[in-house]
Parts: sequence; C-alpha cells; structure tokens
Amino acid sequence: MKRFRVGVIRVITLEDRGLIERHGRIMEKAYPDIETLSICIEDQPKGIFDESSEKMAAPKIVEAGRRLLEEGVDAIFVSCAGDPAVEDLRRIAAGKPVFGAGKPLAALALAISSKVGVLGIGEEPPRPLAATLGDALISYRRPSGVSATTDIAESLGAIIEAARRLRGDGAEVIALGCTGFSTFGTAARLQRLLGIPVLDPVLAAASIIHHELIRTSRLGELLEA
Amino acid sequence: MKRFRVGVIRVITLEDRGLIERHGRIMEKAYPDIETLSICIEDQPKGIFDESSEKMAAPKIVEAGRRLLEEGVDAIFVSCAGDPAVEDLRRIAAGKPVFGAGKPLAALALAISSKVGVLGIGEEPPRPLAATLGDALISYRRPSGVSATTDIAESLGAIIEAARRLRGDGAEVIALGCTGFSTFGTAARLQRLLGIPVLDPVLAAASIIHHELIRTSRLGELLEA
Repeated sequence: MKRFRVGVIRVITLEDRGLIERHGRIMEKAYPDIETLSICIEDQPKGIFDESSEKMAAPKIVEAGRRLLEEGVDAIFVSCAGDPAVEDLRRIAAGKPVFGAGKPLAALALAISSKVGVLGIGEEPPRPLAATLGDALISYRRPSGVSATTDIAESLGAIIEAARRLRGDGAEVIALGCTGFSTFGTAARLQRLLGIPVLDPVLAAASIIHHELIRTSRLGELLEA
Repeated sequence: MKRFRVGVIRVITLEDRGLIERHGRIMEKAYPDIETLSICIEDQPKGIFDESSEKMAAPKIVEAGRRLLEEGVDAIFVSCAGDPAVEDLRRIAAGKPVFGAGKPLAALALAISSKVGVLGIGEEPPRPLAATLGDALISYRRPSGVSATTDIAESLGAIIEAARRLRGDGAEVIALGCTGFSTFGTAARLQRLLGIPVLDPVLAAASIIHHELIRTSRLGELLEA
C-alpha cells in the first residue's frame, strides 16, 4: 500500500526520465509504502561538486521543493550528501520531513560502527558527514580522477582502489558520500568485493525519511497495544 | 510479504504472551516485511536498571540469542537502550544484524537534531546513548519516582513533567532511553503534548535493523537500474 509520497530533488540536470527517477525507485523498492515524485534542477549538468556549484544550486533546490510541496508530497529528499538547502526547505515544509543524504548516512554509519571511512567526490568530505561523524570519521578518500558526480560512471577501478585504501586505513564501514554512487549500484559492488558494510546514501536517506514519516503520522497507531 | 524474521529478546521476565510480544508487534506494524519471534529472560522481574542487573542479564541474553539463532532468525533485537550483550551476540551471529535500542536511538536522534534530551530510568543516561550522542546530548532526566522499567506504568504525570523539563533545557528532540516506554505508547503521548519530536526506542531500532536487513540481503537488487 502506498501511504507516503516523497518528493525527490535531483541536484543535477538530467534529460532522461529513467535517470531522474533512479533514486526515487531505490526508495520505492526498499519501502513499498513510499511512492516518489522526482524532479531535477536546471542548468547544472555537472551537479554539485564544490562551494560555488552548491551556492548556485541552493535557490533552485528551494524552488523545486516549493513545487513538490504544492504537489502535496509528504516529505522531501534532496538527493545530495551535502544536504544543500535542507535547512531552507524545512522552514517552508510545515513540519514535513526534509532530508538530504548526508545526515542520514552519518547516522546509519554511527549506528553500526565508530570507525567510518567516507568515499566522496570533493576535496573535503561533505560537511554534514564530517560534522555528524566527528571522531568516528577516521578517513576520507576521493577516487583518482573523480571530481564530480559525472565522473563516477567511468571510474570503477579508481573507486574500488580508494575503497580498499579506506579499509586499509582501518575503516570498518564505508559510507558513500555522493548520491551519484547510488546511480551505479556502487555500494553493492564494493560490499561484495571488500567484505565490510558499505552504506548507500539514497538507501540511508530512505530509511531515515521512512522513520520520520511513520513518527510524524502513525506513531499513536503503531504504539497502541 | 514477510521477508525477514527478527528475534526479539525482552530483558525482563514477563508471563503474559501479549506483553512479551508487544515490542515485536510494533516492529511488524512499522515494517510489514518483518515478522518477529519474541522471548524473555528468566528471573529478572524488574528487568535491567543498573550495572548489577545488567551483569546478571548478560549471559541470559546471550543464551536467548543462541536459541533464536538456532530458530533461524535473520536478525536479533535486544530490547533495551543499554545494548546489553550486543557485542557478545554479534560474535556468534555470523554477520546477521544484532542491535539493542541504544545506538539506533542515538543515530536517529542525530539525524534530526544536534540538541537531544534523553529521558531514562537510571541514574545516568544509557552508555550507548551518551557515547554516540556526545555533545548532542544536552540534557538527561529521570522522572521522579522512576528507577526501573516497571515504574513507568504508574508514572505518567512524572514522565510528562520530566519531558517538559527536557524541552525547557533546550532539547529539540527527546529520545526515550528505555524500551519500557514503548510498552505504554509514551512517545506518541509526549509528542502530542510537547509539540517536538519524541523518538520511540523500539521504532528507532526497527528502522535501523530494517535498513541492515536490506543492506545485507537485497542491496544488489535494490540498486539495480
């Protein structure tokens, strides 16, 4: 049964409908009571990969969120580990859950380990990951040749190498710090190869958003004897 | 569809089957793909409420977990915010998810706020909550007259008062640091009264365990285009 509608904001300009909806489909497969409505922002073919591209994206994300709220969604997912414009959207979302992938990913990682390695696309780990993980963030690595989400498709070898290095650094869990990794099923591949937990940012966000949808709408019913 | 069987260990001795299964039912209602199998430990009618009662419970919890694993469960939930014997059980669970309520509750709280108040039954907050929340744990309170999970049923007024004080201390989210609160639907009541998020420990654990069940068994399928 579809109980909840989640609006998904892709922070990269995409033409292909299947690609735009890819992250939403992951959420739907994991949580059958969720259906998703996905839109992407305009004029950012490389997505968000540094401060300037994040700044440029922020007002577009707020505008996209406004449209999704007008469509009546029950929650908003900004599909980016940097949680861009999430605070701004919360101010207009009237208590509806609004999340990026960053905080949920950090939260899931902390639930299972205190030695977390983050794999990302920027010079530094995404801010919400660094802030929430604190000392549990024991290593950050960026695959060689990767500086934007659009590089992920062509960089599987470098991604595997960077993940192995994170494990060598002592990481007991790897958190994928860019939702572009979700598009290519990277978490499943790495987990199979490395034999340690690898957290997918879209699945992490789906779990937290699902919990928040339940908490804000069904808590009384669930806790009833 | 029931995909996953979760073994639930109640760390208090209960006779009534409905009471033993109460926490498992919350998990099942929230996640229809989970079914639960609940058992309780013997000779601890007051449950776990201090170091000595936790020490006494630990080998019984391990033994209960062993029985559940023999029954073929896919994951184990030790229904206690102190996460007792969780590390021991992981050593015999062959990679299957094993969680108490403590770390999952802390993780959920961090996903939504950095100002968390904890309501509990002990002199100190449960260790996994204190350790994982770190500086985000801004206040801990125990309701007047409450020193064990068995006091919760009779203490609604004191619980409400303690929760109001947590909010007064600046807490933006309240995490209920004893799964006894789940038995009485405390989170739903407090949330309605206080108007801030109140996290139920059993629901938090269910969310994290559900994510881990998916991650360990269905990740490839979910991330497939």
